[in-house]
Amino acid sequence: MAAEKMLPQIFKFVDQNVESYKALLKEAVAIPSVSCDPKYRKECIRMAHWMQNKLKEVGASTELRDVGFQTIDGNEIQLPPVVVGSLGNDPKKNTICVYGHLDVQPALKSDGWESEPFELVERDNKLYGRGATDDKGPVLGWLHAINAYKGIGEELPVNLKFIFECMEESGSEGLDELLMEKLKPEGFFDTVDYVCISDNYWLGTTKPCITYGLRGISYYFLEVECAKMDLHSGVYGGTVHEAMSDLIYLMNTLVDKDGKILITDIYKSVAPLLESEKKLYNSIDFDPEAYRKSIEAHKLPHNGVKEELLMHRWRFPSLSLHGIEGAAFQPGAKTVIPGKVIGKFSIRIVPNQEPEEVEKLVFDYIHKKWAERGSPNKMRITAQSGRAWTENPDHPHYQAAARATRLIYQTEPDMSREGGSIPVTITLQEASGRNVLLLPMGAGDDMAHSQNEKLNVRNYIEGIKLFAAYLYEVGKLPK
Amino acid sequence: MAAEKMLPQIFKFVDQNVESYKALLKEAVAIPSVSCDPKYRKECIRMAHWMQNKLKEVGASTELRDVGFQTIDGNEIQLPPVVVGSLGNDPKKNTICVYGHLDVQPALKSDGWESEPFELVERDNKLYGRGATDDKGPVLGWLHAINAYKGIGEELPVNLKFIFECMEESGSEGLDELLMEKLKPEGFFDTVDYVCISDNYWLGTTKPCITYGLRGISYYFLEVECAKMDLHSGVYGGTVHEAMSDLIYLMNTLVDKDGKILITDIYKSVAPLLESEKKLYNSIDFDPEAYRKSIEAHKLPHNGVKEELLMHRWRFPSLSLHGIEGAAFQPGAKTVIPGKVIGKFSIRIVPNQEPEEVEKLVFDYIHKKWAERGSPNKMRITAQSGRAWTENPDHPHYQAAARATRLIYQTEPDMSREGGSIPVTITLQEASGRNVLLLPMGAGDDMAHSQNEKLNVRNYIEGIKLFAAYLYEVGKLPK
Repeated sequence: MAAEKMLPQIFKFVDQNVESYKALLKEAVAIPSVSCDPKYRKECIRMAHWMQNKLKEVGASTELRDVGFQTIDGNEIQLPPVVVGSLGNDPKKNTICVYGHLDVQPALKSDGWESEPFELVERDNKLYGRGATDDKGPVLGWLHAINAYKGIGEELPVNLKFIFECMEESGSEGLDELLMEKLKPEGFFDTVDYVCISDNYWLGTTKPCITYGLRGISYYFLEVECAKMDLHSGVYGGTVHEAMSDLIYLMNTLVDKDGKILITDIYKSVAPLLESEKKLYNSIDFDPEAYRKSIEAHKLPHNGVKEELLMHRWRFPSLSLHGIEGAAFQPGAKTVIPGKVIGKFSIRIVPNQEPEEVEKLVFDYIHKKWAERGSPNKMRITAQSGRAWTENPDHPHYQAAARATRLIYQTEPDMSREGGSIPVTITLQEASGRNVLLLPMGAGDDMAHSQNEKLNVRNYIEGIKLFAAYLYEVGKLPK
Repeated sequence: MAAEKMLPQIFKFVDQNVESYKALLKEAVAIPSVSCDPKYRKECIRMAHWMQNKLKEVGASTELRDVGFQTIDGNEIQLPPVVVGSLGNDPKKNTICVYGHLDVQPALKSDGWESEPFELVERDNKLYGRGATDDKGPVLGWLHAINAYKGIGEELPVNLKFIFECMEESGSEGLDELLMEKLKPEGFFDTVDYVCISDNYWLGTTKPCITYGLRGISYYFLEVECAKMDLHSGVYGGTVHEAMSDLIYLMNTLVDKDGKILITDIYKSVAPLLESEKKLYNSIDFDPEAYRKSIEAHKLPHNGVKEELLMHRWRFPSLSLHGIEGAAFQPGAKTVIPGKVIGKFSIRIVPNQEPEEVEKLVFDYIHKKWAERGSPNKMRITAQSGRAWTENPDHPHYQAAARATRLIYQTEPDMSREGGSIPVTITLQEASGRNVLLLPMGAGDDMAHSQNEKLNVRNYIEGIKLFAAYLYEVGKLPK
C-alpha cells in the first residue's frame, strides 16, 4: 500500500482501539514491579513473563534471559530475567532494536497520591498510575504500533529486536553483562541498523522532541577523618582539628556562586560550540520564566537567557554539592564533632570530557588544595563515573524520526539533549555500533518517580501513531 | 562526737554496708527510666515515686511536683513529676540544696552491651548498667550518706533540700519553670546556703576533681534556600544558584584550620587569663598523648601542650561545624540538588561572653559575608543559646569540698572545668543566689550515654564517704 494511504489507515485503526490500549496499560500498571524492594521481586519476574506473552501474541520470537543474582543486605536475590525478542528477519528491511523497561519506582497512596498508584485511573484525559509514563506506556506503545500494522493487514516495514528489562530503576543490574558478554558475541546485534529508546520526556508539555544527547556523570566521595569516633563538642571542642571544617574548606574550592567550576583545566576538553549547534537552541520551546516559577527560584543564573540555560543544562558541565555523610543531618541541635565525614559532589560531564581525564583533574586539584590546607587529618577521594553521550541530530535516522513526528504533531520537533544520564544508551551504542535515538512519548510534566505519575491520553495515543510512523520512516531509509 | 572520731565511724559503717548499696543501685537501674522515649514514660513516673519513697525512708518530707505536659509528634504527654524534698530545718545549721536526675539515655543489649543494660552486673569491681554513673549512683550516694549518719546514731551536720528530676536527658522539660516560677516564689531557696550537683566525672580515672566552670553554648541554624523542592542534578544542574554552595561558602568563613574562630570581635569579651588561674592548669592530671590516642587523632592542636589543651577545652570558646540538614546524608551516590539546607554550628561560649552579644556578632558577621557573596538565594540565621558558668574555686564552699576529697582520696583534687554545658547549674545559681559546686562521683571512663556504662565500686563506695565528709565539712562552715 502506498504511504499516503497506509499511515492514515493505521492512525484510524489506532483511534478505534483507544479503549483496548488503556485496558492493556491498566493491566501492566496493576503489576507492582518495584525493582528496588526485594519484597516485590516476584512481581518484577511476573512482569517479565507478562511481557514475553504479549510479544508472543504479536508474533515475536522471545526468550527470557537469566542474568543471575544480586546481593542485598548479604542475601542473594534472583534478578528478574530480561525479555529478549525479535520479529521479522527480512534481509531487505532495516532492523531496529527497541529498548524499554517495565519495572517502576516505589509508590504508596499515603505518599500523596490522589488515587491508588497501581490502579490506572483516568482523570481529565490523563492516565494516572505508577509506571504509566515511565516506562510501561511507551513499551506498550511499540506493541500497539506493531498490532496496528497487523490490524490493517499490512506487513511491518522493518525487522524488530526487543530488549525489555525489569531492573532499570535499580541500576539495570546484570544488563550490561548480558548485552556485551552474551547478546553481542551471540550475534544479536549483527543485523541491527538502528537503536531506539523511548524512556524520556518532552522538554515542556506541548512540543514534541527527539533527544540526541545526555550528559555523563563523575561522582566523588571526599572523605576526611579526624578521630575514630564521633566526639562531643562540649568535651572535645577546641582540642581537635575537626574533619568538618577541613571538608567544608575543600568543598568550598570547587564551584563559584555563579556555578563556574573552579577545578583547573576542567573546561579544556569541552566540545567547542559550533555555529550550527548554536542555532539549534534558538527555536527550542523553553520558557525560562515558567521554569523559574516551577521551582520557585528567586533568580536564574546566566541572566535567565534561554539559550544559555539550555546549554548549561545539556552541553556544559555542571558541579553540584549533594551533601555530607557522617555529619549531623537530623532536625534539632545535635552537638557532635563528626569523626569521619564524606562529602558528596558530582560533575555532569559532556562531550568531549572523558571520565578518566575528569577524575584526574579533580583528584589533582583536591590534593593540591589539601596540601595548601596543611591539615594533619586523613583525606581520601574516590570517584565513579559514566560517559556523556551524543549523536549527530542531522543523521538520517534522526531525520526519519523528525518526519514521523511532524506527521503526527504538525510541528517541527525540538532536537533536545538531557542533563541527566541513561547509562544503557551508551551500552547499546557500544554493543550495536549503530546510531541510537531517544524518542520520548510522555510530556515534561508527567512526574516520573514522583507522586501522581501520569501519561496524557493524547501522548499515549499519538505516541502509538508516532511509533508506527517512525517504523514506516525508518523502513524507507536505504538499506 | 568529735570529728576525728565521727567520720572514721561513718566510713566504717559504709564499708560494712557495701552489699546493700549495690542492691539498691541494682533496684534503681532495673527501672528503665528512659526519658526521651514516650514508651518508657510510665517508667520515669515510677522512678519518681520510687525515689520519693526512699527519701521518706530516710526521714525527709517530700512531694511530687507536677510540671505538666510535653508535646511529642502532636501528642500531649504527661511529664514525670519532680521529686522535691527537705530534711532538717535547724536554723543554726547550713542548708545544702542537692540536685540529681534519675532518668537515663536509651540502651539496648543489641547496641553492643556485654550484659543486659537494665540489670546491674558487677565485673572486675565495676558495676555495669544504664544509669549506674549517670546519675542514679550519685543520687543514691546522698541517700547512703544520710543513712550512714543515722547508722552511727549521729544527727546530720546540715539541713538538706532535694531536687531530683526524671527529664534531664531530654532537656529537663518543665524544670526551669518549676524552679523559677514556683519553688523560688514559694521560698524554697530562702534558707539554702549552698548548692551541690553530682552529675559529672573526673577528668581521668585516678584523680578526683571538683568542677567550678562549664562553657555555655550558642547554637546556630543557618538556612539557605534556592528552590521550593529538591531538584535532580542531571536535569537542573547548571541552571540554579545552588543553596549548598552558598551554605558551604558561609560555613567556610567561620573557623580556620587551627580552630581559631574568624567571627569579628568574638574573642573580645573572653575573660583575660590571670596568673592565678594559669597556675591552676599546671598541676592538673591530664596526659595529652593518652587523650590523643583515645580518639586516634593524628595530631592535636596547640602543639599538644597540656595547659593549652585544657584552656581550649574549658575557658576559651570553640566553634564546631556539626552538619547539614536537608542535604544528602545517606551512603551511596544520591544526585540531588537540595532545595533548602540548614547548616548547624555552635560556639561553646565562656566567661564573660554573653549569649546576646555573641549572637549579635555572629549574625552581623554572617550577614556581612552573605552580602559579599551576592547570591540571589534566601538566607536566614537563628540561634539558641545558654550562658557559661563559673564559680571562684577559692570560695569556702570549694575549700570545704576539697578538704572532704583529700580526706577520702589522700590527694589534692584537681580544680577543673568542663567544656560542655549543664543548664540546670545556672538555673540553680539564679534561683538560689548561692554558690554552686559540682562534685563528681564517677571516673572519666564511665561511658555515660554510651554502651557498657559503669560505675567503679571504688568510686561508688568512696563517693558515699566523700558525700558524708562533704556534709560534715559544709556543716563546719560559719553560718
